[in-house]
Amino acid sequence: MKATRTVQKILSYYESDNPGVKGNLCRMLMQGRLGGTGKMIILPVDQGFEHGPARSFAPNPPAYDPHYHYQLALDAGLNAYAAPLGMIEAGADTFAGQIPTILKMNSSNSLVPKVAGFDQAITASVDDALRLGCTAIGFTVYPGSAHGLDMFEEISSLREEAAAKGLPTVIWSYPRGEDISKDGETAIDVGAYAAQIAALLGAHIIKIKLSTDHLEQGEAKKVYEKQEIAISSLADRVRHCMQAAFNGRRIVVFSGGAAKGENAVYDEARAIRDGGGNGSIIGRNTFQRSREDALTLLSTLIDIYKGRG
Amino acid sequence: MKATRTVQKILSYYESDNPGVKGNLCRMLMQGRLGGTGKMIILPVDQGFEHGPARSFAPNPPAYDPHYHYQLALDAGLNAYAAPLGMIEAGADTFAGQIPTILKMNSSNSLVPKVAGFDQAITASVDDALRLGCTAIGFTVYPGSAHGLDMFEEISSLREEAAAKGLPTVIWSYPRGEDISKDGETAIDVGAYAAQIAALLGAHIIKIKLSTDHLEQGEAKKVYEKQEIAISSLADRVRHCMQAAFNGRRIVVFSGGAAKGENAVYDEARAIRDGGGNGSIIGRNTFQRSREDALTLLSTLIDIYKGRG
Amino acid sequence: MKATRTVQKILSYYESDNPGVKGNLCRMLMQGRLGGTGKMIILPVDQGFEHGPARSFAPNPPAYDPHYHYQLALDAGLNAYAAPLGMIEAGADTFAGQIPTILKMNSSNSLVPKVAGFDQAITASVDDALRLGCTAIGFTVYPGSAHGLDMFEEISSLREEAAAKGLPTVIWSYPRGEDISKDGETAIDVGAYAAQIAALLGAHIIKIKLSTDHLEQGEAKKVYEKQEIAISSLADRVRHCMQAAFNGRRIVVFSGGAAKGENAVYDEARAIRDGGGNGSIIGRNTFQRSREDALTLLSTLIDIYKGRG
Amino acid sequence: MKATRTVQKILSYYESDNPGVKGNLCRMLMQGRLGGTGKMIILPVDQGFEHGPARSFAPNPPAYDPHYHYQLALDAGLNAYAAPLGMIEAGADTFAGQIPTILKMNSSNSLVPKVAGFDQAITASVDDALRLGCTAIGFTVYPGSAHGLDMFEEISSLREEAAAKGLPTVIWSYPRGEDISKDGETAIDVGAYAAQIAALLGAHIIKIKLSTDHLEQGEAKKVYEKQEIAISSLADRVRHCMQAAFNGRRIVVFSGGAAKGENAVYDEARAIRDGGGNGSIIGRNTFQRSREDALTLLSTLIDIYKGRG
Amino acid sequence: MKATRTVQKILSYYESDNPGVKGNLCRMLMQGRLGGTGKMIILPVDQGFEHGPARSFAPNPPAYDPHYHYQLALDAGLNAYAAPLGMIEAGADTFAGQIPTILKMNSSNSLVPKVAGFDQAITASVDDALRLGCTAIGFTVYPGSAHGLDMFEEISSLREEAAAKGLPTVIWSYPRGEDISKDGETAIDVGAYAAQIAALLGAHIIKIKLSTDHLEQGEAKKVYEKQEIAISSLADRVRHCMQAAFNGRRIVVFSGGAAKGENAVYDEARAIRDGGGNGSIIGRNTFQRSREDALTLLSTLIDIYKGRG
Repeated sequence: MKATRTVQKILSYYESDNPGVKGNLCRMLMQGRLGGTGKMIILPVDQGFEHGPARSFAPNPPAYDPHYHYQLALDAGLNAYAAPLGMIEAGADTFAGQIPTILKMNSSNSLVPKVAGFDQAITASVDDALRLGCTAIGFTVYPGSAHGLDMFEEISSLREEAAAKGLPTVIWSYPRGEDISKDGETAIDVGAYAAQIAALLGAHIIKIKLSTDHLEQGEAKKVYEKQEIAISSLADRVRHCMQAAFNGRRIVVFSGGAAKGENAVYDEARAIRDGGGNGSIIGRNTFQRSREDALTLLSTLIDIYKGRG
Repeated sequence: MKATRTVQKILSYYESDNPGVKGNLCRMLMQGRLGGTGKMIILPVDQGFEHGPARSFAPNPPAYDPHYHYQLALDAGLNAYAAPLGMIEAGADTFAGQIPTILKMNSSNSLVPKVAGFDQAITASVDDALRLGCTAIGFTVYPGSAHGLDMFEEISSLREEAAAKGLPTVIWSYPRGEDISKDGETAIDVGAYAAQIAALLGAHIIKIKLSTDHLEQGEAKKVYEKQEIAISSLADRVRHCMQAAFNGRRIVVFSGGAAKGENAVYDEARAIRDGGGNGSIIGRNTFQRSREDALTLLSTLIDIYKGRG
Repeated sequence: MKATRTVQKILSYYESDNPGVKGNLCRMLMQGRLGGTGKMIILPVDQGFEHGPARSFAPNPPAYDPHYHYQLALDAGLNAYAAPLGMIEAGADTFAGQIPTILKMNSSNSLVPKVAGFDQAITASVDDALRLGCTAIGFTVYPGSAHGLDMFEEISSLREEAAAKGLPTVIWSYPRGEDISKDGETAIDVGAYAAQIAALLGAHIIKIKLSTDHLEQGEAKKVYEKQEIAISSLADRVRHCMQAAFNGRRIVVFSGGAAKGENAVYDEARAIRDGGGNGSIIGRNTFQRSREDALTLLSTLIDIYKGRG
Repeated sequence: MKATRTVQKILSYYESDNPGVKGNLCRMLMQGRLGGTGKMIILPVDQGFEHGPARSFAPNPPAYDPHYHYQLALDAGLNAYAAPLGMIEAGADTFAGQIPTILKMNSSNSLVPKVAGFDQAITASVDDALRLGCTAIGFTVYPGSAHGLDMFEEISSLREEAAAKGLPTVIWSYPRGEDISKDGETAIDVGAYAAQIAALLGAHIIKIKLSTDHLEQGEAKKVYEKQEIAISSLADRVRHCMQAAFNGRRIVVFSGGAAKGENAVYDEARAIRDGGGNGSIIGRNTFQRSREDALTLLSTLIDIYKGRG
Repeated sequence: MKATRTVQKILSYYESDNPGVKGNLCRMLMQGRLGGTGKMIILPVDQGFEHGPARSFAPNPPAYDPHYHYQLALDAGLNAYAAPLGMIEAGADTFAGQIPTILKMNSSNSLVPKVAGFDQAITASVDDALRLGCTAIGFTVYPGSAHGLDMFEEISSLREEAAAKGLPTVIWSYPRGEDISKDGETAIDVGAYAAQIAALLGAHIIKIKLSTDHLEQGEAKKVYEKQEIAISSLADRVRHCMQAAFNGRRIVVFSGGAAKGENAVYDEARAIRDGGGNGSIIGRNTFQRSREDALTLLSTLIDIYKGRG
């Protein structure tokens, strides 16, 4: 499939990457109903690991089956499907070549005791991703955790290996740590910082949370106020995070978190679009709805990113 | 031996695995008196490591001899025998090719001081398993332990190596940790979570404990109640754990724990069978009985799994 | 370009290095408007990692774009540009061969919690530096940190690999730690010690902070007083640090820290020059000014180092 | 030398081992005055490391010289000599091929501070053992230490390498740890457990201490009492430990500890013999006596093991 | 140069070493004015790392230049010069083949915070030593530190690599740790123990401090008193340490510590000689004097070791 000019422009920002990495980025950008627009919607299903199976799938029991999610991402015309090793293994052959997959390489879980701090376990390898025909690897970092620097070293090493083998890297950059307040985890200064760190670590695609207008760090707060950085609307904050992502030279997708009403989901997508973000990574708001409702919601989201909603 | 349709169906769920792994899964599923039924009984003998030799074998002293267990598994028509390195070494030549063996690659012991937390030592390698003619590797994880994430990394790495070399992985997923209550270790929400984690880690066979109807985690409890998940009978709970094992796409065997009366053992097997579980992993309830009593008990269990008890 | 006698003299001090390392040192020493003088100005842009994007770039928003800094270093006639992986990746192809680059291989950030101590994460490899056409690697050590010895081991290993592959090593030697006072971080005894440690670790170029006349360590203080070491002027202190850098056998560049008035920057450069230092590494004082102001400031600095200011 | 039937029987228990390992076991079993009887006496000299040189050798100063011990083991007709790297290095050429040597691969010392817990340092490699012509490797584990699981991992890895290279492994299994009482270190339940762990780790020869009739662990105590396990005499306890060593399928030698009167040493040997143990590992009770006294004592011990004392 | 009988006798003690190691030992023993006598004086210059540049070199500023020390060792007719990587790098080409060098592979510094305990950083590799034409590697261990066992593992591994590549190992064995008193660091029982540990670790040359007659460890004290070990004179204590060094089968050189009067230095050398020690390792007492004074002092020391003073 011939890449559109928009996609070619985006690919040109990855100027030091090899054709293998660019080719896989192109595959994701050209896939599905948003293919060619430079916008993306990714379906991530790692909540079974993070929160447990019942909290994730009981609201819509067919979702216990790994094939369900492959099929949903495919039928909804999404750009890619991201999941941990076991989930990918269970469907990679059936859906081979039909939908780009992102192997989520580390995960945490809600059973981890407090004393262990904020960390994740690496549960797959880059060679697993190649063997399973994946299009990219995914990795979570917790800037602000006492384990944060170690996580940076882990992804730096995996990123190098993946890129050498032609696979782009998606970094989930989720601030969380001993000295960060609950509000701080979604503060705009911290969110922009998370985007910057992911970009500096060499992420090809950055996944961050949508931010509030809270400012967490004292030194940063002074600068935001002195420089009068616009952060009052959600679109403003998306725009600021795109600045932090090398002034838009890196693809950024935003996650919305827990399940919520449809209109809230649509409003967030409009803000992402208006702020210049590249799209959404949306899990619980899709697979915890019935398949029909999820397909409807995703169709509307796609329309919004196409500028029609 | 030609695989039955039931076994072929099960093997089809392991769609991304190579013929080496599938072949060894098939060997275990086609072995013994349950061969071809899709049900399994595995004899595990790692209690000498976990609890010490006298607590394990003094009730039936012939069991001090490693050959005893090979012979028992073989004569009872079980599917496989699992043990740590030393036990396997001591009989692998005598019983070569007669009974599938699972090399238990990590173990703990009751001498470990409290300050060390909940962990196990890796005491064998994948190449040991190949050298000894084993059919699979086995590994314990403790979700909930401060060492839990490290254990996940260990088995992820060993699983990758083993699968590349044609060996399936059996994961003993035993929740245990600083923030989990004693009741929580066998709570149904935690047990289903343990099954899910093992599946996500890429286990080919999952070993979990039978659960009670206790609910340990607050966030999970809300969902179980709101979604009215059926957990009142033991069979219900087995059924729920099978959901958590990719809706039955992964083999799950259940362990019963300390020695108990025969009828209790039989009732558990019926619940496993009725809930759609794949079978039992049963140690102390066999080798702590006399050989004759153990053979009788196992014969009855096999009948139950065949639907005749 | 034929190396000047001054540069050849400096290169002769690196007597045990291979032609690859000497060639890259030569490239940096012969680059830009200070080329051939033995003096250097390096533009470092790792503040986005260390302090966050807004604190670094909001005062001059075009600086959010990684290309901005390449262009600035090139247009100002500087010797080299230093930055973390993501920043280098984003411009390495566009500016290939035009300006020597130093891949900053480790970084910290202001989100790191107190409990983690003073440390940095390694976020790139020597092979990344080669792949991206870099002229040197850069690395920060924190003498005085509980992680300090580990950081020394990290850079020792990276330095060995880099030198074998023809890349010189630039060490940012920044005392910081559990038992060092805030004043001590810039004390002259500690600063000279930092230079000595970097030289002993095998740094080809040493980056230290300008010192005050504070003396931090009791045993050292006695010696400074007994031996009447001259430390009263900034030039004296630069001279003393050059002694600590193998009596001038190693290149030392000095950093000035936070943004300040132009005259302060010029005075510091004069002291560096008069004390026999090799030059400046200057970040926030350039890119937080407008491009025109920065070019003017850098032009003046270059004149100073050429003895014309 | 043709192996006796007794030795062939013992070798047959090591059914999964390669000819290299069996050949070296055979060399030790066929060496010296006990050659062919299935009994062994090993001279261990690591006390200089564990307790310091003066406490070890001052009572008999010629023992400061490493050659002394080689000569003593050879002249007394013992089966093997075990020592750390430096001791082996200092005589390996002079005594090459004359007396089997066991390279003790880890050691502790009495200067280790309390805060470091119970651990040893690995001070040699398997390749050192090959290079020095050793017949086996030796390794201490401390079951019950917070470092115990790590030590198990160390020896598991070294054992695998050694066995692949034809060298048997001797494990010194010495319970010691944060939650074990002083009496517990020599308790019979703990001693039998130590033998079991060593066997499970794949030890070819197990070295444990002689036990008292103390029972340390509550759960174990119940079983000893309920099953009426015979532990009242020293021979009973040796017999029980042999059960724990795979019912006698593994060679077990017993150490007696600090220097004591000759008759006490003889009584212990009789108990080891009568309980079915394989022999003694005896250091301080030999080299802290004069050479003549040591040769007399060892001669008597050998007679006892031959059933003549 | 033909080795003298004395040197050949010493080399014969290293019976398990390869010709590469023996050849380099021979080079050091045959070098300089003590060449062939079996005595050695080594110049160590790692104080810039350990104590800082001003405390080390300000008393004699030409010593800031790394070439100064090479020249001093050469002109004084010493056996070898030992220093960390940077110092060796800075003169290895100029002085190639003229004076044996020992690459000091680990170092500590006085900025290390208390919380970090007693440890050193490895700052060079065995391949660095080969590349720089060194004759041996040097390494410090701190018996008694909580990091001590790790340091033993480090040097064991480096020693194995170095020996395989033909390089002897010099171990600085300096007791220091959480449970050792200040007096204990130079106690005779501890000093002899330090020599023994270095010998057991496989050191080819052992460097220890001169001891006092203090006895630190209770169990050892009993033995010294019961066995009436002679420790009252400095020569007695040297003699006892030589016993602990495999009864003189290992070369031991003694360090004297901080700068002191010439006569004190001479007296120490006489005691080392009379006690059968192999010589001195002497840093601050040489390079903190003027070059002329240092040459005079070293000349006298050499005469003493030759039996003429």
